[in-house]
Amino acid sequence: MSYKQIIYTTPPAPAIDPSLTTGTFRVNTTPKPQNVPADKILVRVHYLSLDPAMRQWLTAKRSYIAPVEQGAVMRGQSIAQVVSVGSDLASQYNAGDWVVAYSGWQEYALVGAKEAEKVALPAGGRPTDAMSVLGMTGLTAYFGMLEVGQPKAGDTVVVSGAAGATGMVAGQIARIKGAKRVVGLAGSKEKCEFLVKDLGFDAAVNYKDADWKKQLKEATPEYIDVFFDNTGGEILDACLARAARDSRFVICGAISQYNSAKPQGPASFMTVISQRITIKGFIVFDYAKKYPTALKELASWLSQGKLKRKEHIVPGGLEAAPKALIDLYAGVNTGKMMVEVAPINETLATKSKL
Amino acid sequence: MSYKQIIYTTPPAPAIDPSLTTGTFRVNTTPKPQNVPADKILVRVHYLSLDPAMRQWLTAKRSYIAPVEQGAVMRGQSIAQVVSVGSDLASQYNAGDWVVAYSGWQEYALVGAKEAEKVALPAGGRPTDAMSVLGMTGLTAYFGMLEVGQPKAGDTVVVSGAAGATGMVAGQIARIKGAKRVVGLAGSKEKCEFLVKDLGFDAAVNYKDADWKKQLKEATPEYIDVFFDNTGGEILDACLARAARDSRFVICGAISQYNSAKPQGPASFMTVISQRITIKGFIVFDYAKKYPTALKELASWLSQGKLKRKEHIVPGGLEAAPKALIDLYAGVNTGKMMVEVAPINETLATKSKL
Repeated sequence: MSYKQIIYTTPPAPAIDPSLTTGTFRVNTTPKPQNVPADKILVRVHYLSLDPAMRQWLTAKRSYIAPVEQGAVMRGQSIAQVVSVGSDLASQYNAGDWVVAYSGWQEYALVGAKEAEKVALPAGGRPTDAMSVLGMTGLTAYFGMLEVGQPKAGDTVVVSGAAGATGMVAGQIARIKGAKRVVGLAGSKEKCEFLVKDLGFDAAVNYKDADWKKQLKEATPEYIDVFFDNTGGEILDACLARAARDSRFVICGAISQYNSAKPQGPASFMTVISQRITIKGFIVFDYAKKYPTALKELASWLSQGKLKRKEHIVPGGLEAAPKALIDLYAGVNTGKMMVEVAPINETLATKSKL
Repeated sequence: MSYKQIIYTTPPAPAIDPSLTTGTFRVNTTPKPQNVPADKILVRVHYLSLDPAMRQWLTAKRSYIAPVEQGAVMRGQSIAQVVSVGSDLASQYNAGDWVVAYSGWQEYALVGAKEAEKVALPAGGRPTDAMSVLGMTGLTAYFGMLEVGQPKAGDTVVVSGAAGATGMVAGQIARIKGAKRVVGLAGSKEKCEFLVKDLGFDAAVNYKDADWKKQLKEATPEYIDVFFDNTGGEILDACLARAARDSRFVICGAISQYNSAKPQGPASFMTVISQRITIKGFIVFDYAKKYPTALKELASWLSQGKLKRKEHIVPGGLEAAPKALIDLYAGVNTGKMMVEVAPINETLATKSKL
């Protein structure tokens, strides 16, 4: 018996090339392990998580995490099911358990206890929630908005990449916590409608419209108190120009810049002084001690229907992942983007539905 | 009797034009007031303060202060002496008092009590200290470094524009407060020598050297914990690339960008996320309630010789101010730049000496 893996082969220059014969990645077939080491579990991968940060992992720069080595399996989280358990871990896992695994892009993986978190779901939860709204993207939105952004009653909160997995949760949290006005920036009419009609944002601006800066101005009549930024570039720039006095700019990501050979900084930088802006970058891992509290609150909002989830599931198995990653940077998805390596069961295959 | 004024006439496009016949400013002659209104004092201006922020005051953008109107006397602080006092203010001022006045660029000015702060000097103080080390630039350095930057023992602190009036005080305060390593960035070999030999900086880098980025790297072996920025542009960019985890970037000014039609933002902006940097702009006025405490501490350091001052006095009277302002942006000065409109007395005319 053997299984497939996606190997990181060639550094992007600067764009990711989806070809599996000449591009950034290759498919490799490897034998399934006969025995599971005592300190590992063997898991079967069902859904791969696709994340904007992945592009940064392919660049050998000083960053919060070491780059993926050429020749290694592409790094990534997945929703996976335990197939067999090493003897040391028999008290922790059973075959059949669902886990969030640091499996990388492969159909099966041997992982240690630190790389496999058992999925615990609230009423109405699905396994895939554990890697989106109740996982890294949900936690990123939670800590970025509440610990860094700290919206107060009366505040205008703007979120970029607002229809993405993190942005949609960030905006909803601001709404739940009583922000006066929540405005989303997204890249299509449909996404903007989704934000306003389905998620209850006060306004949404399609940054692909010719007059989007005018729309942003109209949508923020009292300027911007908290900006939760997933995109960087021109959008960050336009929001700096609309910053309120003493505003907080939460730098979560900069998806517009990841594939750029020459990243663009904010030209409206002088506003930082005149409006006394605080710009702060953060990494969700720094809040690891507070994950349990945050997950409890997120789960309660999800169960109560205050927090809505949305998944964008890409079919086609493991080989679909490189192209799906490119699509993520192109903004094809609304909500959490994942690649279906193996369906969980028929009832869960609610592709692209809330 | 009449006196001279410098009038702001023509917006810079984008550079200030020093010609007094075709440029940004004109000289006007106006009669000296016969009577002083009850709520004013008449002051004679001796030294004009030249400040990097002045360029911003000539631009009609949303800022922390309204722009100077075309046709008005150019805004600015000065060290001035009271000539006569309106009846309502007789208990507050006497003829002969030295004041820091919001006089603007003119030889005489009528100012209210809010626009004229009496000079109070510690042992060894000079009147001009009240508009430099014990005035706005000293206070800016104090609050920017201590309230925003908050250097801790063990920290590496870097200051740009380090030989300027604010930068040289900021670096010295970091040293006094126990920073492990204080590094200055300045624009000449002489300035760098001044920082290290006269002010006790651990290292100084001349950003006009071809290999300045390499020098900066060598001067910050443990990266940068606090960056006090007066320059913006390429220097801010290089310091972002050297930022330590959880570092604080204090945005005080951006003198490299003020005369630019297209301001340049920091391209190394991604480090903000990976190193969890906090970038914060500030305006000294926000700390007005704490001025007395700060001035007491600054005065005590000055008297004890822990804090050194340096003045760059431009001769030539009022008409020298427009060209001197351009020289300020060109970095001609070491220390506080001021224009001598009228000498205080012979003993004070210690031109360009410590």
